[in-house]
Amino acid sequence: MHKKGLILIFTGHGKGKTTAALGMSIRAAGHGLKTCFIQFIKGSWKYGEMEALARFHEEIDFHVTGRGFTWKSEDVKKDTAAARKAWEKAKKVIRSGDYHTVVLDEFTYLLRYGMIDTAEVIEVLREKPADLHVCITGRDAVEELIELADLVTEMHPIKHPYQQGIKAQKGIEF
Amino acid sequence: MHKKGLILIFTGHGKGKTTAALGMSIRAAGHGLKTCFIQFIKGSWKYGEMEALARFHEEIDFHVTGRGFTWKSEDVKKDTAAARKAWEKAKKVIRSGDYHTVVLDEFTYLLRYGMIDTAEVIEVLREKPADLHVCITGRDAVEELIELADLVTEMHPIKHPYQQGIKAQKGIEF
Repeated sequence: MHKKGLILIFTGHGKGKTTAALGMSIRAAGHGLKTCFIQFIKGSWKYGEMEALARFHEEIDFHVTGRGFTWKSEDVKKDTAAARKAWEKAKKVIRSGDYHTVVLDEFTYLLRYGMIDTAEVIEVLREKPADLHVCITGRDAVEELIELADLVTEMHPIKHPYQQGIKAQKGIEF
Repeated sequence: MHKKGLILIFTGHGKGKTTAALGMSIRAAGHGLKTCFIQFIKGSWKYGEMEALARFHEEIDFHVTGRGFTWKSEDVKKDTAAARKAWEKAKKVIRSGDYHTVVLDEFTYLLRYGMIDTAEVIEVLREKPADLHVCITGRDAVEELIELADLVTEMHPIKHPYQQGIKAQKGIEF
């Protein structure tokens, strides 16, 4: 069986998941290929990324979904409603046939917290346009997603500066 | 002790090391901060990356060093000479004070293969300008480097499409 479009996952608790997806998107843009980058956690992207992406406005469409920095707010009902709405948006984009790559950034949490139906996500991904690449990032990807994916990389933290009391810095962490 | 400039390492056999460094560089560029990206394996970067980087020509200086795709050619003497020349270049860049971030891409091999002196590299990194960030990528980072670094992420391959007989593709792998 030859599949053209891959499903790629960057997971794990280490740094570089979103950054790798960002790098992938701009690499595709360098080829003139279109990416839709859907960010599932509102507020996790900062000024540096946004400014950089603006240079690729012709090749990269960027959408922000979600309610705030975390999906685990006090208001589970509102969180779940927002998660479902975001997933509906993603489905449309995946099925549109308009893109070379679709990035679902920080998407794994929606499945991990049971906010959307894993079986439905797997089905949509299975039936995606044959040549579309889908890149999913986030910690703790569920087993069904790992199983389905073609390429899975776990970013594993060996050392982290926060452990050593160093603050986040402009241009490095955000 | 408060250090401003971090030493970051992306290592391991998984995907996304160079891509994460690329993402980091363009993120810094989004802030208007300058990066020098030194690629230690000639030929590992392809058209997509180069085209994408061209949009950041004001913020990202890009240098290619090395002799070819691998450092393990038949001609060890020529490889070692090229490695040392590349490292001399990197030293100048690190000490220049001209950059917010210096990326040493696929640099770990030079140490792993003993082509340059690890003790000297550690010393240069220890005495780098205080506010400079240095990002090093490549498989099998030597222990001394891990020890020195502030942030180390291991990209660990869980699944890889080549294992399944799928070919590398434009905009994803290169």
